Amino acid sequence: MIYFDNAATSFPKPEMVYDSIMKVMKEYGANPGRSGHKLALKLGREIFETRETIAKLFNIKNPMNLIFTFNCTESLNIGIKGILEKGDHVITTSMEHNSVLRPIKALEKLGIEVTIVDGDSKGRIDPLHIEESIKENTKLIVTTHISNLTGTIMPIHTIGKIAKENGVYYLVDGAQSAGVYDIDVEKMNIDMLAFPGHKGLLGPQGTGGLYIKEGLDIREMGQGGTGSTSHLLEQPDIRPDRYESGTPNGPGIIGLGAGVEYILEKGIDKIRIHEEELTKHFIEEVTKIDKVKVYGPLDTKYQAAVVPLNIGDLDSSELSYILDQNYDIEVRPGLHCAPLAHKTIGTFEQGVVRFSFGPFNTHEEIELGIKAIKEISKEA
Amino acid sequence: MIYFDNAATSFPKPEMVYDSIMKVMKEYGANPGRSGHKLALKLGREIFETRETIAKLFNIKNPMNLIFTFNCTESLNIGIKGILEKGDHVITTSMEHNSVLRPIKALEKLGIEVTIVDGDSKGRIDPLHIEESIKENTKLIVTTHISNLTGTIMPIHTIGKIAKENGVYYLVDGAQSAGVYDIDVEKMNIDMLAFPGHKGLLGPQGTGGLYIKEGLDIREMGQGGTGSTSHLLEQPDIRPDRYESGTPNGPGIIGLGAGVEYILEKGIDKIRIHEEELTKHFIEEVTKIDKVKVYGPLDTKYQAAVVPLNIGDLDSSELSYILDQNYDIEVRPGLHCAPLAHKTIGTFEQGVVRFSFGPFNTHEEIELGIKAIKEISKEA
Repeated sequence: MIYFDNAATSFPKPEMVYDSIMKVMKEYGANPGRSGHKLALKLGREIFETRETIAKLFNIKNPMNLIFTFNCTESLNIGIKGILEKGDHVITTSMEHNSVLRPIKALEKLGIEVTIVDGDSKGRIDPLHIEESIKENTKLIVTTHISNLTGTIMPIHTIGKIAKENGVYYLVDGAQSAGVYDIDVEKMNIDMLAFPGHKGLLGPQGTGGLYIKEGLDIREMGQGGTGSTSHLLEQPDIRPDRYESGTPNGPGIIGLGAGVEYILEKGIDKIRIHEEELTKHFIEEVTKIDKVKVYGPLDTKYQAAVVPLNIGDLDSSELSYILDQNYDIEVRPGLHCAPLAHKTIGTFEQGVVRFSFGPFNTHEEIELGIKAIKEISKEA
Repeated sequence: MIYFDNAATSFPKPEMVYDSIMKVMKEYGANPGRSGHKLALKLGREIFETRETIAKLFNIKNPMNLIFTFNCTESLNIGIKGILEKGDHVITTSMEHNSVLRPIKALEKLGIEVTIVDGDSKGRIDPLHIEESIKENTKLIVTTHISNLTGTIMPIHTIGKIAKENGVYYLVDGAQSAGVYDIDVEKMNIDMLAFPGHKGLLGPQGTGGLYIKEGLDIREMGQGGTGSTSHLLEQPDIRPDRYESGTPNGPGIIGLGAGVEYILEKGIDKIRIHEEELTKHFIEEVTKIDKVKVYGPLDTKYQAAVVPLNIGDLDSSELSYILDQNYDIEVRPGLHCAPLAHKTIGTFEQGVVRFSFGPFNTHEEIELGIKAIKEISKEA
């Protein structure tokens, strides 16, 4: 089986991820931060260490500004809804995932003004278009770092600069980049960074995070037990507690920590270069094949390890089915929870078959993928 | 090590819980409901089967009315905030956890009327007091099934009847009961049932659920990718998708399913009777010890496997520390995220040391617990 669906969730995970999760569950699977006994304290301490590890990866100076969530969607909802109020204006792009667009669309009904900046046919966003959209009441810019549809790498550094210069907050969706591409919240002027634990960071599902800049007072989405200031009926406003109500995914967070440790040990550059090599070769070869349409910038300087394609007018689900059944190659077809992005690149009707590579994919697997596309396109 | 902190999280889990999680992670850890390949489909199918298994446990007729969340706190937030609007009145009790009280207190600031019915010194709630509190604009009653502080079993069947007769919705917090005590949403007139996956249901942390009665149109808290109706910028209103945005905790849900399978195989009655026996003996013996104050109804007909106690005026944290360090017994001290419940039973200043038993605790462990309390109380 060849797994080319890493943009949905990375698979497999490093062995140390599996091992650390089982170790927590079997040896000290207590409720961290709730009780004072040694099991709970050990898990609580390790969760804090994981916070430090991830903070290091993104150059977050105070780990308490990093909150754990259960997926990137929750992180984005907190970031978007926690800051915008009636009368505010938010700018986003046509390349966003529904996890950005749907919360924003829900807010639009409540009186928040929305501008959606269009990408071009390769899924690129011109930062000037964002700058031109800034108005008196603009409070927030939200963009993805890397499109989940086309793999297009967005100029977040430039957008961050624009946001800062104009006194606007910037929320980055790191769903497809965290763990593979450099993210420095300080240098890039990122006020909030949302990320999943189970994709590039190689942790398990049920984990995610949100960095919130020091002093940025955003509302929490939920309230509940935090294990802190238990005598109060009001949600505490200390971080991270304010945003982490209820029992966290203790073993999951430790697994995520192991994933990030793996990345730091291996070197994020090494992982990215490996994925770039795979992607470069794949793009070079599939673009040569008759009838194959490949989307995105088609240059690994501007496109991550996410390559969408179609063969002629073949339905993307059918192509995906053939790859699965006849070649044991796992990809994702259809619309990728990013309807405006499909409209932007012209694949709203047909969908696309998305190939997305991860650190454990090999050159041999890429060759087999290319071979499969060649064979299928001959018969299509 | 003796683990008496099962009300915080159950530990250990049945072997099949560990095994099933690892099996998913290592063999088919794809993104369920996102892609069409065999790994994703297999996980998606098994998640649906888990939905069916849990639905069976609570007599939920349509499994699609059961949504997966990441913890009980999230479930309660969705249930409470999804239904109440400005001008509505909600009734709850002084015995609730902060996961109920804090969301309600947050809503109070937005113009929702709140009545908190007081419990008695044993943590009992008189359903008549709830009935008397119902007004013209009462929309919702929220109560726990079992107090996390005193173990008091609430008369949810009677409250459900009162709610139904008065045309008021009833949300039950099953945090301490699900998996041990019978819950039948039909017979008990429960409109919404919130539960954690990692306590009595013996699943991993990072899992929970909310049953929402057919036709009860409550708002979702977050929006995002659902893998369904991906072409739309609006959150789909189909269940369970509407309430399950973003990647679910796939392996966690399968682990939860294994926990529930374990319960169904073993028999929920057998588990409860075992816990009742442990609790009965523990209460009988510790109430005899000089200087020991034990809280709750002190009768397993009315008190679950949650026994809070203090020794004289000894600080609860100190007692817990001695138990941990000298006896290797793990309990939870302090305030238990239920400030009003502490006021109700008169332990707001001292806190309590909470002993909470689970299916894997043994009679021998209970004896060691009793012996420890005896020894410490002699020296106190």
